[in-house]
This record gives sequence, structure tokens and C-alpha cells, in this order.
Amino acid sequence: MRHRVLLSVLFAATLAAATGHAQDEQKKKPAAGGPLSGHWVVTADYLGTPLNLGMDLDQQADRLTGNFDGDKFEGSVSATSVHFLAKDDQGGSEEITATVTGDSMSGNAIFIYSSTPSHPFTVPFTAKRVTEYHRGTPQRHEFTPTVFYRQFSPHNKPVLTVSPGDTIHTTTVDAGGTDEKGVSRVLGGNPETGPFFVESAQPGDTLVIHITRLRLNRDWAVSDDAIVDRGLDSDLAVKMKDGGKQVLWHLDPAQGTASPDKPAEHLTHYSVPLKPMLGCVAVAPGLSNAPPATGDSGGWGGNMDFNEIIEGATVYLPVRVPGAFLYVGDGHAAQGDGELTGNALETSMDVEFTVDVIYRKHPPGPRVESATHMMAMGLDGSLDGAFRDATSNMADWLMSTYKLTPSEVAQVLGSAAEYKVSEVADRNAGIVLKINKDRLAAFTASAK
Amino acid sequence: MRHRVLLSVLFAATLAAATGHAQDEQKKKPAAGGPLSGHWVVTADYLGTPLNLGMDLDQQADRLTGNFDGDKFEGSVSATSVHFLAKDDQGGSEEITATVTGDSMSGNAIFIYSSTPSHPFTVPFTAKRVTEYHRGTPQRHEFTPTVFYRQFSPHNKPVLTVSPGDTIHTTTVDAGGTDEKGVSRVLGGNPETGPFFVESAQPGDTLVIHITRLRLNRDWAVSDDAIVDRGLDSDLAVKMKDGGKQVLWHLDPAQGTASPDKPAEHLTHYSVPLKPMLGCVAVAPGLSNAPPATGDSGGWGGNMDFNEIIEGATVYLPVRVPGAFLYVGDGHAAQGDGELTGNALETSMDVEFTVDVIYRKHPPGPRVESATHMMAMGLDGSLDGAFRDATSNMADWLMSTYKLTPSEVAQVLGSAAEYKVSEVADRNAGIVLKINKDRLAAFTASAK
Amino acid sequence: MRHRVLLSVLFAATLAAATGHAQDEQKKKPAAGGPLSGHWVVTADYLGTPLNLGMDLDQQADRLTGNFDGDKFEGSVSATSVHFLAKDDQGGSEEITATVTGDSMSGNAIFIYSSTPSHPFTVPFTAKRVTEYHRGTPQRHEFTPTVFYRQFSPHNKPVLTVSPGDTIHTTTVDAGGTDEKGVSRVLGGNPETGPFFVESAQPGDTLVIHITRLRLNRDWAVSDDAIVDRGLDSDLAVKMKDGGKQVLWHLDPAQGTASPDKPAEHLTHYSVPLKPMLGCVAVAPGLSNAPPATGDSGGWGGNMDFNEIIEGATVYLPVRVPGAFLYVGDGHAAQGDGELTGNALETSMDVEFTVDVIYRKHPPGPRVESATHMMAMGLDGSLDGAFRDATSNMADWLMSTYKLTPSEVAQVLGSAAEYKVSEVADRNAGIVLKINKDRLAAFTASAK
Amino acid sequence: MRHRVLLSVLFAATLAAATGHAQDEQKKKPAAGGPLSGHWVVTADYLGTPLNLGMDLDQQADRLTGNFDGDKFEGSVSATSVHFLAKDDQGGSEEITATVTGDSMSGNAIFIYSSTPSHPFTVPFTAKRVTEYHRGTPQRHEFTPTVFYRQFSPHNKPVLTVSPGDTIHTTTVDAGGTDEKGVSRVLGGNPETGPFFVESAQPGDTLVIHITRLRLNRDWAVSDDAIVDRGLDSDLAVKMKDGGKQVLWHLDPAQGTASPDKPAEHLTHYSVPLKPMLGCVAVAPGLSNAPPATGDSGGWGGNMDFNEIIEGATVYLPVRVPGAFLYVGDGHAAQGDGELTGNALETSMDVEFTVDVIYRKHPPGPRVESATHMMAMGLDGSLDGAFRDATSNMADWLMSTYKLTPSEVAQVLGSAAEYKVSEVADRNAGIVLKINKDRLAAFTASAK
Repeated sequence: MRHRVLLSVLFAATLAAATGHAQDEQKKKPAAGGPLSGHWVVTADYLGTPLNLGMDLDQQADRLTGNFDGDKFEGSVSATSVHFLAKDDQGGSEEITATVTGDSMSGNAIFIYSSTPSHPFTVPFTAKRVTEYHRGTPQRHEFTPTVFYRQFSPHNKPVLTVSPGDTIHTTTVDAGGTDEKGVSRVLGGNPETGPFFVESAQPGDTLVIHITRLRLNRDWAVSDDAIVDRGLDSDLAVKMKDGGKQVLWHLDPAQGTASPDKPAEHLTHYSVPLKPMLGCVAVAPGLSNAPPATGDSGGWGGNMDFNEIIEGATVYLPVRVPGAFLYVGDGHAAQGDGELTGNALETSMDVEFTVDVIYRKHPPGPRVESATHMMAMGLDGSLDGAFRDATSNMADWLMSTYKLTPSEVAQVLGSAAEYKVSEVADRNAGIVLKINKDRLAAFTASAK
Repeated sequence: MRHRVLLSVLFAATLAAATGHAQDEQKKKPAAGGPLSGHWVVTADYLGTPLNLGMDLDQQADRLTGNFDGDKFEGSVSATSVHFLAKDDQGGSEEITATVTGDSMSGNAIFIYSSTPSHPFTVPFTAKRVTEYHRGTPQRHEFTPTVFYRQFSPHNKPVLTVSPGDTIHTTTVDAGGTDEKGVSRVLGGNPETGPFFVESAQPGDTLVIHITRLRLNRDWAVSDDAIVDRGLDSDLAVKMKDGGKQVLWHLDPAQGTASPDKPAEHLTHYSVPLKPMLGCVAVAPGLSNAPPATGDSGGWGGNMDFNEIIEGATVYLPVRVPGAFLYVGDGHAAQGDGELTGNALETSMDVEFTVDVIYRKHPPGPRVESATHMMAMGLDGSLDGAFRDATSNMADWLMSTYKLTPSEVAQVLGSAAEYKVSEVADRNAGIVLKINKDRLAAFTASAK
Repeated sequence: MRHRVLLSVLFAATLAAATGHAQDEQKKKPAAGGPLSGHWVVTADYLGTPLNLGMDLDQQADRLTGNFDGDKFEGSVSATSVHFLAKDDQGGSEEITATVTGDSMSGNAIFIYSSTPSHPFTVPFTAKRVTEYHRGTPQRHEFTPTVFYRQFSPHNKPVLTVSPGDTIHTTTVDAGGTDEKGVSRVLGGNPETGPFFVESAQPGDTLVIHITRLRLNRDWAVSDDAIVDRGLDSDLAVKMKDGGKQVLWHLDPAQGTASPDKPAEHLTHYSVPLKPMLGCVAVAPGLSNAPPATGDSGGWGGNMDFNEIIEGATVYLPVRVPGAFLYVGDGHAAQGDGELTGNALETSMDVEFTVDVIYRKHPPGPRVESATHMMAMGLDGSLDGAFRDATSNMADWLMSTYKLTPSEVAQVLGSAAEYKVSEVADRNAGIVLKINKDRLAAFTASAK
Repeated sequence: MRHRVLLSVLFAATLAAATGHAQDEQKKKPAAGGPLSGHWVVTADYLGTPLNLGMDLDQQADRLTGNFDGDKFEGSVSATSVHFLAKDDQGGSEEITATVTGDSMSGNAIFIYSSTPSHPFTVPFTAKRVTEYHRGTPQRHEFTPTVFYRQFSPHNKPVLTVSPGDTIHTTTVDAGGTDEKGVSRVLGGNPETGPFFVESAQPGDTLVIHITRLRLNRDWAVSDDAIVDRGLDSDLAVKMKDGGKQVLWHLDPAQGTASPDKPAEHLTHYSVPLKPMLGCVAVAPGLSNAPPATGDSGGWGGNMDFNEIIEGATVYLPVRVPGAFLYVGDGHAAQGDGELTGNALETSMDVEFTVDVIYRKHPPGPRVESATHMMAMGLDGSLDGAFRDATSNMADWLMSTYKLTPSEVAQVLGSAAEYKVSEVADRNAGIVLKINKDRLAAFTASAK
């Protein structure tokens, strides 16, 4: 159905952009050509549902060519208006008429689907041209949250608007909704700080979140003693059948350790190193999607529970809505790989991060960078699926960034891949494929 | 964290109820004991999030015992008020004070968590006692939809309130949002007719939807020619790389067949029998959950795409919110198992169904009944997980309904299980375990 | 490594043959050209390991072209000898010198690998030309087994040599090694009757086994009351933890039913229809492979435990060694889908079947045909993998048999696929994709 | 069927031993009691199939109690003979009569199964008492292989007999069968050096292989440029469709690196650190099993392709047959996690290792120890299954070694688990759960 085709075209566009080949050089520069030429982000009211679409225009005198949501068109343009007919590859069309005011446009698209040609319908829209972003002096924002959200939604009101390069210093409550003072602020389930609106970030871009500070701000955490279903074969399920009790942990930043507050017999001397991490970093999925719960994850990030999202790490997420709508939350004082107990050492956190935008290209899924590694995450309903996704995500990155051929990608991954299990506690399992940056240095050298 | 414990207790209660052993005989009769005795459904405002909890009261003179959301308590009661302290098994508590008016109650719960005992907080709530439902003359409702929803939400306004035993006759648009006249009504993605509010249905009950009529109301459907990723090994992925074109089908009720409108070379004589089905039947998940998209599925039903949900079938779903909030949509004129192409033969539909409620017991996941079979569905991110879920769902059903022992369940399933793949097109895969009713007749006989 | 390349070439050849496009018309006719022209099956001694390879020769006067195990060559031929040099696509070569006697050849191949060009080595071999098979009057063989094998091995001595078209009447012991008289004949684990050597069957062909009779020959079966791990989520694992007791079943052919001999309380009236099936039908995997246990399965069939391999069914398996080496065993009086209890109703069996050969094409995995359906099986370590394999197996079949395009395949499977779970009890899980023959009739019609 | 029960009892015994609780203190000391008391290993000829069973005897004067293959018995004993009747829990029995000569016994067992009580049959057997092993001066064996095996079989003739504590210095050919001089020695598929017979190792024990030296002995390796199916989603499958070419690598021990011999364009400067590893370390599976190919893996080790089996590592494997039958092979100069290309940097190797035996306890699957970590491996047909197995293997180890309770195990794994993907190239996928020894130190301390 054309409605579905529309959505699948959006998705295909996403993938095309992800490989980023064609767009690499475009970035934020205004395209050559007449004054309307360039990339536009369309916000449409599609029979009651808000929607973002992409539109590329190329003006030559009074002639206009380009594509509307991936459908090619030719048309005409006057001083203040455009008119064109785009055709999809299934036999349908969109006829666009709009009034232009500088970098804005507003008008109507008449949709005709090939299966129902006698039933055109009108979709009003506005559009904004993507213009060059002028980077000013980066700001540092001190933000004290008063509301915490339980869905990664583009419909929550942004708590702060920031610019690329800016730094935000804030706090997060623990997964159960309790803050650094022990006050219950909201029902649990990974309530988030944010959303932060990032100026100039548009669908098709990459949001870059560099965590400059991630510190404990209280001396306790809670966890439990059950193993999640993904970790249980039938033997272990029987052994673990009585699990599920809450375990209180004492956090000791001076010693750099966490230990059970009232340890069971054999854990009297047990402690783990503190390694504060953020379980959740997310942008909002698309406008037309159902906003996911803060326990969920996807290509847009979310509750990834990856224990290398720590101070010093950089997270790359694909922007899906104008402004990106960045959320952070679910701090863990320490966590074994995968968050096997469902709850890690859940605690509130003192967080600082810098945001930036890479324009007109974005990854198929989350990526994380540390001082030593580049990492590509796969998220899926099974570990087997997550493994395929992580491999595909990294292959895409090696191809688009270093222009490696498929054969070269195979040789590199076969000799240098490091895979770890990042997540087993939630609906999506996660696997992360890491490549040591020492290996990547060779490609930069080869490219010279 | 207690917040989490709270939610896990809710879930445990769900499971306990699902097995239904203890509750079998209670049903809707007022429990013995004083006037407040019985089961109450609590609607709380938990720090800004709405929440449904269960509460059981047993009044003996001015003494009150019971449990609040699974936590046991003892307390006192006067003519118009109750007061009691419930303790959870993690060292926390809830102190409840409320004013009673007939079968209603309103008051506050002061929550104290064991990890933060110095930070109590107040949760205002109202509660309604579950009272005997007096079945009147069943009504037949003619309903013409004007709005179609894209999330299975308990927050959408019910379009109609019906009673157990009532019948609803209505229509659904196709998965792409197009109605029987070919008019685009809404953005695609399985927009739904509903929600229908079912009087007396409460969390912990089972909603029964018996489909009395499911007919085509137009002569065309759309599908496509791509195979979803779950069906592709690397060989087939390469062969199928150019798929994704829309395919228009002609529906011929007189012949009882569907055939491609402009068939490709080898499909000139190809047709399939019409077998109209509903891809989506759902109740709303819990109040505190993120409302899922209408492309998703879960224990509460949803986009199951099971091609035995046809005229004559009965669907059983666990009620999660007062009134159940029933949705129907996504009709298919015909569909191979699993909806391998992502789109089946998508079409609008003329639907009639009767609703009913089984009180105080509910299944762990969807169940479907036909003239010949009882069926239990498993839904999970992998077929392997869905297989385990389907098996567990059916085992639960055999144990709770026929009191079979685990050994007996194994013998029955080992000799009589029929498994089919029900869904591969969406985030959850589905497997259905069917048992021929001829086998079940033996247990009823044994029980005599 | 070239050794591996050699094996992968064998495998690639297998796949190429499976699609069968090019070879369709060749079949067993001697190819045009000089007297040596045709397809040869090579039996080599590769540094101590026996191996079958394929060789195609095209003689024109004293010039010889063709391929040796997929590697192309040009060479010369005299009255009684051949000499040629084949080159692989990795830079290695094989130099062949052999003496020809009619349809036989014997000689040496000197292998040189590109990675070790200074270390050639000699592989002695014999070869037999595949000649036209002259079908005589089919024979019926009465065979009483005295030895039962526990591996699907090409190294076991054939118990009988038969020709295409012949019928074999024999018996099988139960999975535990007990015969129709209750006598223990061999250790359990699906001991097999066979192997039967089928004249003219060569690697690359399809063995066709049509089951003409499959009857009970005793009145009892044994099973147990445990559910295999694949069926257990953590809940059901705990419930089922005490399973594993043997259950004796009484078989009543007159009534057509099986029922527990000493039924547990709720199973007093429980019975299932008798539906005798063969759990194992297999050919031997390749000469160089480790012969698998009779509990295992693969592309060559084996312990498939598919409950539609019954009287009247036809099984298609890819021949891997000259003579095919057919094995049958593991009869079940009845079995639920997947053999969920690990043991079905295990019993001895009276079996009769006709064998035939389809030359020069074979399927990627087992296929089964009934009166009403064509079925393609997928076998893999997970149900998700088995699902992909079954889909790919059927797609291959539709493409090679009916010349359907990928787009047409998707339309057919999307509208007509029937998937059932065939096996969950063993190392490989199985899923079967069925297509109703009513659908297939359309393609034959289209082809006219 | 009792035959199966017999095997499952063997398996259950394995598992019981694996937890090792009861047996911990027994070890190799002769049990208290009369001269026959102790643990015996039975080698039986079960209707033609060789079989190892366990037998525990407790002699008090002329009275004998104990168990035969897990079935309890009471009986009598004279100076030179024993006679007793063991009963299984399914209603069957074994009547044993044997003549004793010192630590040896030979006789017959008459088996009666409950399903076929009128058909007893006789199983001749010999038995050897497990006696205290007297550790002498460890020997160092220099072994030059002349034959290489392609199955992990207990039926191959041992190439050397060694004692616990002994060290073996030898070489391995590469996965393709080529040795350090570039000479092809055998068909590829991981041909192995061994089997080594380890004196005193019995079924139920653990074989300990400590790798003291693992060095390159030639300057080249071969690999390829295809990605295995487990790593391919449909997108990457299409991109990788032309892979499969051999890649020759140059190994430079002086630099400590490996690099492509004729690098593709972007790999001109690409190299990876050398990290020699053994892809295969295995003991033979049980006598009655089909010997697996050297490309396969299981609880007994095999082709694990785990890149932490390097010089300095210790491997723990469960002994299944007397003498263990140790095999080593498939050296890799370097390998990314999982051997994503199917072939790592395959090369011949100079290997030295010390063997030892831990008596009367063994793990459910392979374990590996490094200087810093204890590691438990899971092997299964899917990564999801391997993940459960690895978790269960480690939980078993923490419970049996440190006596941790299930609750304590969950707390430790939740806070300290490190999971990596060890294998994706073969029929079994592998996941390894690692625990840093710094964490384990706490349990030893707690135990004091």
C-alpha cells in the first residue's frame, strides 16, 4: 500500500544516508543552483498524523527538479511559489503546491495512490530548508531536572535547547525514580532527564554525545539476585527459582569499590570496582512512531545497558526528528556484561556531556567510541540477530568511512573483531563489535 | 528498587492469576465476610503516573485483613473509613488511609521503601470494588468508525461502551488506512477500529472476543513481493534483493478466490482461496506502560497476524485496564502462515463480534479457539522464544483448566501437539500450539 | 587453504546442481561429443582420505576440455589415456594423467596449491563414467535385518543392492533397539535397518523413497513424560523438573488408537489416533565426512522426526556417495509435532518402500511429498535458522521446477505458505514449509 | 525405553559429578570398607556396542551394596566372585555375576527391562577398580606426528601414553593439513595431532591441559575473505556475495605481526598482532557415540576456535573414556573473535603442554583459565543457547568450587560477568563467560 511504501521509502532513505557515500561532501553547504536549491525537511500532517519527510530541490532559473520523499519530480517555480508533480515507482504521485518565504515553505501535497487513483487526498505541510549552521562560542548549561519522562517521545516538551558544541551538566535519577537525596521522584522504569533539543539537528544527521563527566552522587545502589530468562537453561532455572530479592549495595568512591551492604555468607569480602555508566542514551524515534518506553531500545539508542558508555566515551545516534530530542538516564555504579540480573547497581548520577552534530549522514544503529576502540552495536530480539546487526553496522562504518571493499571488510573483521555481549536484560538483546583503533590507523594511512 | 518490586509484584500477581487455581471458584460473587470484603481495583496516581493495582479485603467486624498489591496487611475499619499497614517482603511498607462510600473508596497510600526509609511519599488513589455483574439482555451495536488509532492505548477515548454478551458490528480500514470505498482515512501501519470499553472487565480478567462475521467489503487488496528478513538466509537474500514492489490483488467472493490483478508470467493462473482474517485483535496494555504501536504484539494480543483468527474463531486476551479497551483491525483477504511478505492481502473488512468476560482468571498470552482446536500463542523476539512461550501457555492452560499434572501435560503434548508458525513479519515472531478438541474431551470425561 | 577450497568447491557444485537449471536436460543421456565425453564420478585417495569428486569431460577428436571438481581445463586424449591440467581460481592446479578402459579410468592427480607451489603431491584415483541406466523389471525384495547400525555411514557394508524402481519390504527395531518380538537387538539411539545400495545413484542425484506400507508389528510402544529443553521457558522448567519417567503405551490397530498402558489419573480416557511414521530416513553423507550418529540429521535426512513421513509419503534426499546408502528406522506409532518429549511412541515397524533416482539434480535439503502437499524441510541448530532453511529450500524448488522469478516466489509464499514445526527433540531443530498442490497446479498450467 | 534410560542415567551421573559436591573428598583414595570397595569403571559389550559405565561398591564382610550405573543394589561377595541385583527406577533390573582378580573383574550382566520382562539379555563386561595414582617424576615427551586424524575418536590408536604431570612437545599441521615445511600431509578440516592416552584418567574425571609453549614454526598463513552466514543480515549478505577468495598472510615473529601478503588497496598498511592460539583441544566423547568430525565441538571441547587458548592458558575438559584420548590441532597465528571468516590465519604450530587429571569431578562443558580470568564456555546451535550454557557452566563452577548459593551466584554474575563471543564459524556457536580472578579471591577469603 502506498502508505506503507511511503514509510518504507523513508526507511530506505535512512539506510542510503547511513552508508553516506553520496552525501559525504554535501554536508551543510548550500547546494549550488538557484535560491531554493538544497535539502528541506518537511513536516506534514498526514490525515492527522505528524510526519517528517525529506525533500531535495534543485532550482535552475524557473525550472525545479529534485525528489520529494525519494520520489523524483520536475516542476516550475516563481518568486514566491513552487509547483511540481513527483511520481513514485509504484504508479502513484504527489502534486505539491506551496508558498515560499525565505528558507520556509508552506503548502499542500495531493497524494494519489496507484491502487486508488480516484481518491486523491490532501496533506498540508510546512518545510524548512537546511541551512548552514554558524557555530558560535560553545555554552555550558547547568540543568536541574524537575520532571522525568518514561517514554522516549518527540512529543515531550524539551527542557532545554542547546547548540552543537554546547555542554550540559545535569543529574539523573536511578532506574527506580529515586534521586541523589533518596527522594522518590517518579515511578520506576528508567525515568529520563531531558529531552534536550539540539539546534540544527535534522532527520538524517548523526547526534554525537561525548560524556565528559559521569560521577556518583550518593553512596548506595540497589540491585537484585535473580537471573533474567535469557541466562537460564532448564537446570539453572530450577536452581534460581527463588531469586528476586532486592540487594542494597554500598558505594565507596574513595576505595573505588561497591560491595553488598549486608553481604550473604560467601560475599563477606566481595566487592567490584566502581565503573559508573549510563544505561540509557537516546534520541526520539520518528514523529509517526509510537514513543517507546524507557526500558526499550532500538537504532535510536535507548536502554542499551552497555557498560562502556562511561566517562570519556562518545555515543553516535541517528537523528530522527528535528532537534533530535536527547534523553539520558538509568545510571549504574557498576554492571556485569549484559545486566544479567535485570537490575545492575542502580543509582543516581552526576552527568556532563557535550553534544555535536554530523550532518547528512547517520549510522544504521548506535555506535560508541572510546579512547582505544570504535564500537558498533546490534540490537535485536535474539543474540543471533544482534550479532548480525552489529556486524552489519560495523561493515557499513568501515565501508563508508574508509571506503573498504567487502573483501577488505571481511579480512579486517576476521582478524580484528572483538565481540562482547552488551545487553540481555531487556526486550532487545545487544552485541557490540569492537575494533581497536590501532587497526584503523592503517586505513587512514592507506588513504593518504 | 521498590518501584520495580512494585511492578514485579504486579506481574507476579498476573502470573498467579493466570494459573487461576485459587481464584476459580471466586469469580464475581461477593466474598464472604463483612461489607468491605472482596476484590478491589485501585487506580493510583503514583508520582504523576497512573497505575492500576489489585487489593483484596477481608472484613471481620472492625478488623480488616488482606493484601494491597500482593503485600499482606492487618488493619481496622470504621463505618466510613479504613486504615492499615501493608508490608512487602523487602522491608518496605504502604500505610493506607481511605474513606469508603459504598463500593468506592478514596484515600492515600504512604509508601516507604526499605532502601530509603527516611523518604516516605504519598500516593493518592481511588478504588472500586469488583461487584457481581448482572447480565441483562445482550445488545447489538451498529458502529461506524470515524477515527482510527495507531497505538493500542488505554488513553484513547472509547468509541463505544458495551456489556458482556453484547455484539458489535463495524468495519475496519486496511493496514494502509484505506477504507472500503478506496478513501485514505489515516496514515498506514494497521490503524484500528475502537477502542471499545467493556463494562465490568477488570485487570486480571479474560476478555473473550467471538468473531461472528468477517467478510470482504471491497474487491481488491494490496500486497508486495519482498520476503521479510526472518525468512532469508544469505542465498535467498541475494536472490530476493530486488523485491519490494506493490502487488494489487483482485478479490472474487463469488469464486471464493484472490488472484494477482496483473499477474506476472508464471502466475497467470495463480489464485488462492479467500480466507478473511483479522491481523489485529488487542486489549490495551497496562496504564503505566508506553502504549505500543499497532504493528506490535504481546501478551495482550495486537498485531498477531495469525491466519486462524477468522469468522467463527474466539480470541482470549488478558485484561490489563478497567474496560479492557478492545481494538480490531488489519484485515487480510488471505495470508500464508507468518505473513512472509510483510504485507498479506491487505483489505478493509466488515466485522461482527460478541464480547464476554471470564472473571478473575486470565492467560499468560493470547489463546484462540476454533470449532476443532484449542490454541495457545507464543510471541517473542525469536521463533525459539516464541516456541517456548507457546508451550508454556498451553501447559498453563491444561494445568489450570483440566488440573493435569506436569507429567500428564508432557504426555499429552508429546502425543498431540500441533505447532505452526503464526507470525514472522513483525518485531515479535509467533508460534501457535494447537490441540485437537477430540483429545481434550478425554479430560472432561476423566474429571467426571 | 586449497584443501578447504577443494571442499567448498564440492559444496558449491552441490548448490549449483541443486538449482538444477543447467543440468535439467542432461540427465542420464550420454553427452554429445567423443567417446570420453560425459560426467564422471571420481573416487580419490587424498593423502589417506577417500573422497568423491565430479569430473565433466568433452572430447572433440584428440582435444579434451571440461572441469575437474569445478576447475576448468584443456588437455589431450589418446586411445587409452588422458592428460590435462586444471586450474583453480586461487592460482593452484591439478595435473591429471590416467588410463582409460571403457567407462572406467584410473590414474593420478598431481595437486599444486598456490600457497605451497613447491610442494606438489599425488592423489591416486579411479573414475567411472555415469552411463545411461537401463531400467529393467522392478524387483520386490524381502529383507530380514540381522544387524542394525548406529551411524549413517558410507563405510557400513550394504545389506542389499537394489535398482531404481525396486521395492524393499523389511522391518525396523524401535529407537531403543527392541524388535517386534520384544527382543533387545542392539543398544538404543535409533538403530537403523540398511544400508541399501541403490544402483546408478551418484553424488549429485536425488534419491526418491516412496513409502508404500508402514504398519505396526507389535501392540506396545514406550515414551516418557519429560519435555525437551527447547520447549521449556524458566517457568515450565521449574514445573517439569521431576519429569523423565518411562510411559508404556498400548497400541490398538483395530480401534486405530494408542493409549497409556497404566494411565495417570486424568488420562484414564486419553488416547491418540495411530499415525505410524518413520523418524529416520537417510542417505550417507559424503565419504570424507565423519559418519553422523543416528540421532542426528542434516541435508541428507536422518533423524528428522517429521510426523508426515507416513505410508503414502515420498521423501527426496540428495545423494552424496555412489549407491546412496539408504537407511530407515526409528518408527513412531504416533507423535505430536516436534517430538516434544524426546521420545515419541517408540515402536518397531513393518516397512515397505520403493526407491528411485532423479539424475543430475538434487535439493539443498530434504523434501517430502504427500497426496496433497509439497514440503521443504529446514534443519538447523535453532528454529530461526531452520525457518530460513525451509524457506530457502522451497524457494529453490519453485525456481528450479517451475522457473518462477524471485518476485513470483515471494507472492506465492506470502499467500500460500504453511509452516509447521517438525522437530525440536534433537541437535537440529526442524521447520517444514508446505505448499498445497492445488496452488502448484497453476504453475504447470502457466507453463503450457 | 530402558536403553535410553541407561544412556540418560549415564548423562545424569555426568551432571551429578559435574557439580562435584558429594565426590569432592573421595578423589583417588580407596574408599573405606572391604577390599572390593571403591569406584569401578565398567567396559561392557552391549549387544555389540562398547560402553563405559560406572559402578560403586561398598563391601562389608560378605555383604555388598552400591550402585551399578546409578541403579542401587544389595548383594553378596565371596573371595573371588560377586553377585548382585540392581534395580532401576522404571521397574527394570540388572543381575550381575563376576569373577574378581585383584583390581579387575570380569563377568556378565543380565538386563531386564520393565517393558519387555520376558526378554532378558546378557551383557559381558570387564571392570577395573579406580586405584590411587602414584605420581612419579614427570616426564617430558618429544613427539613427532606422522599421522593426523580427522575425527575425535576413542577408536584411533593412541600415538603416545603419558602420565599426569607429563609434558608433551609436538607440532600440529594447519587446518588444511599442511605442515611447517609446506608439505600437504592429509586432507583438510582440522586434522589433529594425537590421540594421547593419559594414564589413570577415567570417565567422570577432568583432564587439565596447560599450554606451556605455543609458537609459530613457519612464516605464512592462509585465510579467506568471506563472512560466515551467522554474521550476515540480508543487507550484508548482498554486499558480501562475491567473497570466498583465499588470502595469504605473511607472519613476522620479529615484529610480532601478521599482514596480508599481497594486500588489497586499503590494506597496504594493515597488520594485526600475532597471537598464536589452538583452535582445537579435545578429548574423545564416549565409547558409544559417533566420533565427531574435527570441525565439530561439544562439552568435550573440540573445534572451539577460542582466541584465548594461547600459551599460558589452561583448558579443563570432562573425561569420557579411559585414557581421555587428547587431541590438539588447528593453530591460528591470529584470529578475531568468533573466526568470522570461517578460516582464521591458519598455520602450523610448535606446541608444548602439560597434562594433569582432577579425579572424580568434571565440568558440564569446557573451561579455560588464564593468568587473570576463569572462563566457562557455552556451545550450542545458536548464540542464545550458547549464552545460557556458558552462564549455567559458570554458575555450576561457582556453586561447586566456592559453595556459593544461587542468590550469591546471581549477585556475582550481575556485577562481574564478562561475556564474549568465542565462535560463530561452525555448527556450534560459542559464548564465553569470564570472571576476573580478583573477584574470586574474595570467595576464598570468605571461605577461611
